[in-house]
Amino acid sequence: MKNAVGREIPDELLKEGWKVYQGAGHRDGELLKKRGPRTRIGEKPQGSKLVGSLREAIQRCGLRDGMTISFHHHFRDGDYVANLVMKEVAELGIRDVTIAASSLGAAHDPIARYIEEGIVTGLQTSGIRGRMGEVVSQGRLRTPAILRSHGGRVRAIEEGEVHIDVAFIGAPTSDECGNARAVGGRSDCGVLSYAMADAEYADRVVVVTDTLVPYPNFPASIHGIDVDYVVKVDEIGDPKKIATAAARMTQNPRDLMMAETAAKVMAATPWFKDGFSFQTGAGGPSLAVNRFIEPLMRERGIRMRWAIGGITGSICELMDKGLVDAILDTQDFDVAAIEHIGKSPHHFEISASEYANPANKGALINKLDFVVLAALEVDTDFNVNVITGSDGVLRGAPGGHPDTAASARCCIIVTPLTRGRMPTVCESVVTVTTPGDCVDVLVTDYGTAVNPARQDIVECLDKAGIRHVPIKALQEKAYALVGRPDPLRWKDRVVAILEARDGSILDVVREVMPYEPL
Amino acid sequence: MKNAVGREIPDELLKEGWKVYQGAGHRDGELLKKRGPRTRIGEKPQGSKLVGSLREAIQRCGLRDGMTISFHHHFRDGDYVANLVMKEVAELGIRDVTIAASSLGAAHDPIARYIEEGIVTGLQTSGIRGRMGEVVSQGRLRTPAILRSHGGRVRAIEEGEVHIDVAFIGAPTSDECGNARAVGGRSDCGVLSYAMADAEYADRVVVVTDTLVPYPNFPASIHGIDVDYVVKVDEIGDPKKIATAAARMTQNPRDLMMAETAAKVMAATPWFKDGFSFQTGAGGPSLAVNRFIEPLMRERGIRMRWAIGGITGSICELMDKGLVDAILDTQDFDVAAIEHIGKSPHHFEISASEYANPANKGALINKLDFVVLAALEVDTDFNVNVITGSDGVLRGAPGGHPDTAASARCCIIVTPLTRGRMPTVCESVVTVTTPGDCVDVLVTDYGTAVNPARQDIVECLDKAGIRHVPIKALQEKAYALVGRPDPLRWKDRVVAILEARDGSILDVVREVMPYEPL
Repeated sequence: MKNAVGREIPDELLKEGWKVYQGAGHRDGELLKKRGPRTRIGEKPQGSKLVGSLREAIQRCGLRDGMTISFHHHFRDGDYVANLVMKEVAELGIRDVTIAASSLGAAHDPIARYIEEGIVTGLQTSGIRGRMGEVVSQGRLRTPAILRSHGGRVRAIEEGEVHIDVAFIGAPTSDECGNARAVGGRSDCGVLSYAMADAEYADRVVVVTDTLVPYPNFPASIHGIDVDYVVKVDEIGDPKKIATAAARMTQNPRDLMMAETAAKVMAATPWFKDGFSFQTGAGGPSLAVNRFIEPLMRERGIRMRWAIGGITGSICELMDKGLVDAILDTQDFDVAAIEHIGKSPHHFEISASEYANPANKGALINKLDFVVLAALEVDTDFNVNVITGSDGVLRGAPGGHPDTAASARCCIIVTPLTRGRMPTVCESVVTVTTPGDCVDVLVTDYGTAVNPARQDIVECLDKAGIRHVPIKALQEKAYALVGRPDPLRWKDRVVAILEARDGSILDVVREVMPYEPL
Repeated sequence: MKNAVGREIPDELLKEGWKVYQGAGHRDGELLKKRGPRTRIGEKPQGSKLVGSLREAIQRCGLRDGMTISFHHHFRDGDYVANLVMKEVAELGIRDVTIAASSLGAAHDPIARYIEEGIVTGLQTSGIRGRMGEVVSQGRLRTPAILRSHGGRVRAIEEGEVHIDVAFIGAPTSDECGNARAVGGRSDCGVLSYAMADAEYADRVVVVTDTLVPYPNFPASIHGIDVDYVVKVDEIGDPKKIATAAARMTQNPRDLMMAETAAKVMAATPWFKDGFSFQTGAGGPSLAVNRFIEPLMRERGIRMRWAIGGITGSICELMDKGLVDAILDTQDFDVAAIEHIGKSPHHFEISASEYANPANKGALINKLDFVVLAALEVDTDFNVNVITGSDGVLRGAPGGHPDTAASARCCIIVTPLTRGRMPTVCESVVTVTTPGDCVDVLVTDYGTAVNPARQDIVECLDKAGIRHVPIKALQEKAYALVGRPDPLRWKDRVVAILEARDGSILDVVREVMPYEPL
């Protein structure tokens, strides 16, 4: 059966109860019962939650074969917690574990081995990269990985589709009762937004910290009333590795040119006015937009009411210059942003549900004016791929991309027309991670295209004298430059399911063909 | 069947599924599944939650006969919201409504009429006073009122025993999406702690405010993701009426003498040391203890790590003098406390569940060292009554009394031996609201008694030279002064059920005999 973005979804998945994607607004206004009950335990008054080791916490939680455990990714490439826990799980002989992480990255290469050994047989995550992406794409994970956006993940947890048996929450500081914060320790990560739903809905919650502080550790990001055990380890992560290449400010002239165009597109719309709201994703050119909106804001004498999302030092700088009223932070991409939330009274930590859940009474991004995002591929239907490389191997993360694209008044994708010998703008993306009806404008180094569904934006650009072309012309230019890409060859087996925000299937990723030299 | 505090619980209630109280620690360590699912609605991106009137909000919520609605009592005697809503409910012809409020007080006298008219047929609350207490005691409410402690209420909501159809949350400030705060408006109430569970668990949530502020109103006490509608009214309450007589600092020499004794009792125990934690209830003598611990703390060179609970200006003063590290606030009893939370970075708003829920993974009061509380009556088993007057009529509120008594290391009750012609210390309290096994010390103006179960405290007092007597001696002295009270005569009908923290029946209140002049 074909879904609303034209992808063929295998019947066997539909028989398992999956639904196909039927469009971005399909569940709007639908009454949703939260089916996820929380487990609580009546703590004996004045009992202690401190346990001596990670292993003891795992054992006390009753973790056993077939269970689901969770992690957050606020330390990004500097995370130690998932590997520390998985090492104990493996040594305890526990098998058939599903990892339900907010995301997984390069830090988690060691987990690939556990997949091959059948210790890990299920993955639910936003990102999947590096060695783990390879083994999953090679069909080594026993069940299809389920990939969700940040909003989709918290929806699935709150609706009970993901049942977490034990959540392991790395926390820069905690008191002995599990009141935990993301600041104030030796390895701060700024916020714990993605872990909040885990703390509320997991049966058992273990806070893992390297800095115990006196009770009560307030204001708490993770509340002790949701925590079963607290473990002190030597180090939970390396904050220096939070800032990856994707989060660094680009100096590349091509990136800067595209960023400038994106800023001009924003300024050409009616929403670029005093009190506007804004998100930029990580990734060089989209991040660089921060730099180019500043002079445009000053010229018009306007301020940004709020910035949201993954936060970098560059948006914090705009706040410190008096151009931004509030920062609503779900994730910090660099050390400057982490330091900023610790000292600015208008830089707020928000929960993942507040940020982007499509199934609550109104996430913050529902009020978002602009989002500027990156892409690995965009096709002529404006569908975006941010998860699979041109070889079909899993190496990305939808993150907040599908959430903000679906919600913002104006979603701008910024990407070079080609990367190496591969066209970025193509006839059909390898995997749809953000549906085309959520994407409004595409800015490339060879020109800008507007989604024909957004004639209002077309008129704005025409009025502002910003040149734009049909997306087909960009695709043809890309193919003229680097040639038409060879079609990918897949095996039948589905190795990953791309879940849309509402829980339906947006696309599937199949096992890659082994490399066969001629 | 008799329960653990010796009260006869009617069989018909047990047949309805109620359990009798079996002791304070009965459910400790029991695994509790939260059965209360949250209802969510997928808001259409960028839709508005503002509606033109309270009536429109009520209609859009689909409020109809037989439903349960809720209110918080942070405005105490200055609350306008419950009456505003009930007036609309009555005018819309809706009947058979249950009010599930965090508490009800003198401000709500007008609701008594709705009880008599069958518009309100159920009451679930902590406090019940004034005209409403009278009509309920006269058997005019169609079903027994269910009275809970603050911790018991949030437990019942989270466990699904109370299902709230529509919560009406008066909020000093809100944005158009329902992000609401207790400070920053024209009528601040300090915190919205008791309303947090309502926002999370009610099917529909209406924020009622008199001060709309720009989006996003952060940090929010009530999160917009839980709110359906926002209504602006002229005034939600009168903060000047928050400070009732119960919350004013006493100048009465008898009260001050008892307060001084209570402070000395505290100082005689091993828990009165650097880093201790403390709560005082409202009520003259218990409040005055704040004044007497200050010199004792200075003498020993110790600081209080945290104060919790209903907060008054006097504990805020102790913080401002550098003697208290953190204030954990569920309710403000006076304007000084409301002003303090707006400016002190170490004065924190906490949720009712964090404060006192006996069925989560460890409420804050589980770590409490001392609580000093008032009482209407105490009996020789140390059972306390704070709900019924000597005439058997409902006129009080358990509030946090049973919660903190059960949790604190040392629970001290301060009360005069007699009030008017009535003995306060008696053979058997009219109604048990706090079980005697949770009460450690009784301080009266005629002497101090220690619960024989607490031989550790007996030894401390002996060592410190603080005189104490058997509680029986205090009761006999009281009877000698004012005579043995006539036994109350009741009708059979149960008009109110006193729920213990764990949901079992601690006691029942029966219909009072009508006054018959001789």
